[in-house]
Order: sequence, then C-alpha cells, then structure tokens
Amino acid sequence: MTPVQTIAIDAMGGDFGPSVFVPAAAAAFQKTSSLRFIFFGDQTLIAEQMAQYPSLSAASRVVHTDKKISSDDKASSAIRKSKDSSMRLAIESVAEGQADGVISAGNTGALMALSKMILKCLPGISRPAIASTFPTLTGRTLMLDLGANLECDAEVLTQFAVLGAIYARVVMGVDSPSVGLLNVGTEEMKGHEEVRSAAAILSTGQFPGRYHGFIEGTDITKGTVDVVVTDGFTGNVALKTAEGVGKLTSQFLKDAFKSSPLAMLGYFLASGAMKRMKDRVDPRKYNGGMFLGLNGICVKSHGGSDVIATENAIHVSAHLVSGGFNKKVAEEMDRLIAQNVISAAPVPETAQA
Amino acid sequence: MTPVQTIAIDAMGGDFGPSVFVPAAAAAFQKTSSLRFIFFGDQTLIAEQMAQYPSLSAASRVVHTDKKISSDDKASSAIRKSKDSSMRLAIESVAEGQADGVISAGNTGALMALSKMILKCLPGISRPAIASTFPTLTGRTLMLDLGANLECDAEVLTQFAVLGAIYARVVMGVDSPSVGLLNVGTEEMKGHEEVRSAAAILSTGQFPGRYHGFIEGTDITKGTVDVVVTDGFTGNVALKTAEGVGKLTSQFLKDAFKSSPLAMLGYFLASGAMKRMKDRVDPRKYNGGMFLGLNGICVKSHGGSDVIATENAIHVSAHLVSGGFNKKVAEEMDRLIAQNVISAAPVPETAQA
Repeated sequence: MTPVQTIAIDAMGGDFGPSVFVPAAAAAFQKTSSLRFIFFGDQTLIAEQMAQYPSLSAASRVVHTDKKISSDDKASSAIRKSKDSSMRLAIESVAEGQADGVISAGNTGALMALSKMILKCLPGISRPAIASTFPTLTGRTLMLDLGANLECDAEVLTQFAVLGAIYARVVMGVDSPSVGLLNVGTEEMKGHEEVRSAAAILSTGQFPGRYHGFIEGTDITKGTVDVVVTDGFTGNVALKTAEGVGKLTSQFLKDAFKSSPLAMLGYFLASGAMKRMKDRVDPRKYNGGMFLGLNGICVKSHGGSDVIATENAIHVSAHLVSGGFNKKVAEEMDRLIAQNVISAAPVPETAQA
Repeated sequence: MTPVQTIAIDAMGGDFGPSVFVPAAAAAFQKTSSLRFIFFGDQTLIAEQMAQYPSLSAASRVVHTDKKISSDDKASSAIRKSKDSSMRLAIESVAEGQADGVISAGNTGALMALSKMILKCLPGISRPAIASTFPTLTGRTLMLDLGANLECDAEVLTQFAVLGAIYARVVMGVDSPSVGLLNVGTEEMKGHEEVRSAAAILSTGQFPGRYHGFIEGTDITKGTVDVVVTDGFTGNVALKTAEGVGKLTSQFLKDAFKSSPLAMLGYFLASGAMKRMKDRVDPRKYNGGMFLGLNGICVKSHGGSDVIATENAIHVSAHLVSGGFNKKVAEEMDRLIAQNVISAAPVPETAQA
C-alpha cells in the first residue's frame, strides 16, 4: 500500500480562499491519489466548493474556524491574535502529526513566525530559509534564502547549502547537485567575511552535493548550479530585481508589437510561439516558497495564486513529504555534526521574522 | 568662449585599444566641439587611427607609453606594476590638472585602486561608488554602489545618496531627483541596521533631492525613483541578476521565433519593431560605470565596448565635467557637515579595492 501524504490547507489565506484551494486540491488529487487533505476554515464556504468534487471530499476532512489572519497584520500582532485561526490550526495539525505538511497563501511574516514557533527547526538547523525554484537556460535552479534571514553567518549559509542540496536530490531528482555561493565575483578572495568563511567550510567536500564555488548574479539564470545559496537580503533583492526585469521586458515587447500594423501582424503569426515562451517562464509553475529547515513541511503559496499555481504548491509539498526531505536533512546534519564538520546549531531562534 | 573639457584616455585598455578609442573620440568631438583629448598609449597605433580624423588630431595630444596594465592582474599586483602604464599616466594627468576626467576600459579593480590612490576622495566623501544608469518603464534610473564597497554603513550610504542626487541633477537633468534605499520591503521596520540608520539620516530632509523611502528590487526597473542607493554587494548582485534575466529572455525569445515557420514569418514582419525594442535596452547606451566621489572624473567603459558604447562613455565624462559635478558635490558635503547633518568623513580609505 502506498503511504499517504496528508496536506493541511489554510483554506482562508490568500486572495481567493476555498474557491481556489478546493479545486486545486481536487486537481492534485486526480494526479496523486495518495494525497489526503485537511481543510481549515469556514466550513460552509469549503462545503460549497467541495460539493463539486465528491472524490476529493472522500479524501478530505474539514476543521471549521471562522478566524483568519489578515494579510496586512504585522507578524508580531498576527501571532498575538492567531489562536484558532485557520493558519495556526493548520500548522498545529502538522506539529501534532495529523498532517505531514501545510500550505498557506496568507501573511508570509505570520506564517514564518508561527511555523518557527510551533514546528521548530530540524536538529542541526538554526533558522529556516525561504526557497524557490527559477527557470534557467538549462532547466531550473533552487535559490535560498529569499528573505527570512537578512544577515547570515557562515554556519547558517552552510546549513542552507545542505537544505538546498537535499531539496535538489529529493524534489528535482538531481543525484549530485552542484551548490554555488552567490558573490560579487568568482575568485576566492572576493566577497565579505561570511561568504568566504562559508566557502571554506563547504570546500571540505563533506557536504551533500558538489560545492561549485562562488557564482555571480548572471549565473542564476544561466543554470550554472542546481542550488544558489545566499543571505535573505541579497536573495530577496535578486528575486525582486529579476521580477522587475521580467515585467520591463514584457512591457517593452508589448510596446514593440503594437508599434505598427506590420508588427501586429507579425505578433499574430508568432502568437503560438510567444505563448509557449510565456509558458516557459510562467510564474505559476514556480509557485510555492518552501520554508526549508522546519520540523514539518511548510509551503507558502503566492497570495494571488490561481488554481494552477496552488495545485503546483500542493505537489511541491507532497514531493517534500514523499521524498522524506526532512528525515534526510536531519540524518545529514547528524552526520556532519558527529564528524565535527560543522558545529551543533545553537538554540533555534524563534523571534526573528 | 565655451570652456573646454579635456578627457584623458587610457587608449590601451579594453579589448580593442586605439581602434575603438580614436574613432569614438572623433564621433564625440563631432557632436561636442568643446572636447579635448589626451591619449595615453602606443603612439604608432594611435597615430595610425588618428590619420583618418584630422580635426580630432588638432584637438588631441598623445603621450606615448608602451606599458599597459593587464586585465587579468589582481588590483594589488597591477598597482605595483603600474608605473608609466597608460592607465596610471591617464589618471595622473587628471590629478595634475592637465585633464578634467579620465576614461578607461581596462582592469576595473586596478582603475578603482589607482584612482582612489592618485585622485583621492572629494572632501566629505569617505569612499567612491561605482554608479551606472538603467532603462526603466519611465526612463532611466541611476544605481550605486555596484561593487566598489561590499559593506557600507549608514554614513557611506548617505554619501552615495548625495552623489546620486547630484548626478541626477547634473547629468540626467532632474531638478528634484527622488532617492530610494534598496531594501527587502518598504515598511519602516524592514531591513538591517545600516539601511534603517541611513533612512533615519536621509529622512531629516536636508539632502539634495527628495528622499523617497525604501524601495524593493522590482522598483529598480519600474522607475519608482531617479536614484537607487545600495551597498556594493547587493548592487552588484542586482545588476548581474538583471543582466542574466535579460539574456534568458532574449534566448527564450529566439527559441520561440525559431520554433515554427509561422513564427519565423511573424518575426520577419515584426523585426523592425523588435529592433526598436532592442535599442531601448541597448547596453551600449548605458555604458560607462562612473566612479563617483573622487577628486576628478573617472569613467570605466566596459572592456568589450565598441565605438558607440565608448562614445557614450566619453559623453558621460564630458557631462560630469561641464556640469561641475564634483564642485557641486563638494559644496553640498560642506554644507551638510557645517550644519551637522552628517559628520565629517573619516580619513579616506585607499586600501580597499
């Protein structure tokens, strides 16, 4: 019998609530019948949607709550008011072992703070990272951290390298993933203290995957490595800069195609090809900011996610669960600490959002 | 009588040497007759090129040297071997008042280290920044620092804000330029200590331009502000990430247009419009990494620059000279220090490359 993966869904988070989460779960369930769901939220709204998907209904249960965390609240205030909220109950169901992973499209800061507080970090990991994958010339690349930890010392960057390498193995199917440290140049003496120390630790060669060395911003989309490791400040700026350039290019393309009747005809003829190009960089295929390093799978779906994007986030969670991501990270960290390659992580921080 | 702007040219730097610098200077001179040039490098090679441009020849002189700094040398080793090199002589001509500004397409690290050592920083400025402009949805934006200073405290970021605002006035012609601090979010409590302290200083409202507040990576190309201020690590990664996304998009577009005969026909019809789009983001129009904050104008042209790109870098230098950029920065810094808005800069650092 195939083991099941039970996903807790914060059905009230995001812009669309159950009207997106239920159809997305139904679509995911159709492809992966080992999925089970616990929906947290308004049972009337959930039931309305569920009526259209009888087979999903049989694989799901609903925990009613009419409390939800607002997307505008600061993390600290959201935590204070979080009792019985759909987000908090969903996270608690993972901590209690009822679910294997949780998905939310709600307030990112609150989700990070609550999941750190309730799930705690994996042994050996001092802080969770936000990770996501990006399209590259050769396939896709995982980058972390994207904003959870603004300042990271060498040990934390090293932990991210372990999380990233195991993700690449488990979810991306890369046997020996290459890991690069994001820097301002590729030479050994480049960069600040933290990246140079992290490089020294990773160069010992005792880590999962292959340490590639320093990489630059251009390497992210070039696909130079499978895993890009950086601090949350740099990662967040790089991610959003890339988004901005994407929007600029798309606007300039639109302007160009509208600039003359001939260009419009050209666009019409090439529109099938243009659509395929858009598909290649469709952000919905890359939806799901994974919070890696927690003692429980936690995936943040984009607030404005539609059914396709949300279904993708569900598959990502299921993959992390079925691939035994957390177990593999814990084993690897145990080994590295036992061999004195890295020191045992300090008491996990739970205050920083 | 119009004052002249004398530009010292390191004619041996970059991939193409005099074969690019001489025609570029000729083109610039044709548009701006107040330009004068001093070429540093191999006089035979320079004379060969100059033979084709008699009017440029009358506005130029040549200082012969057969020594040049290799583009592969580390900055420290390049400095040791720099005596009588075309780059060093060109910088020295600015320090000696023979030229108003210098252009080089050579080794960036060596150019920064030598120009810091020889030109020194402007009064009130503790470190020069590398700045460049970028295309945006609304025009163009200046960003600094792009890699000269990996770690910047609040005072240094504030100095960059002054340099950027005055650049925007003098070269971009913006009367009251808006200045943003690059961060991971726009709320006041976001980011690390350095950006929050810089924000507090800039919020006093006594600086040239208008302080906009924090901006995110997406804002760079959105054109939210005229000037983006950040530390050199973040700026370098953002710049190169943007470059990488540009290359990815361009490759995906090529793939799309080649994917079917219909798409190829579409491309053919739209090719004029596509060319205009490429022109809008043509990196040659944005060539010229300005080293701002030095006691002399210094512009780094990209190593692979062609005539058009190099001509652009010459115009940028001439603009900085004719607009009195350095004089205006020095006056502004004097005022800010006299009014105790910021503290006097420490002894200028010259060691960091």
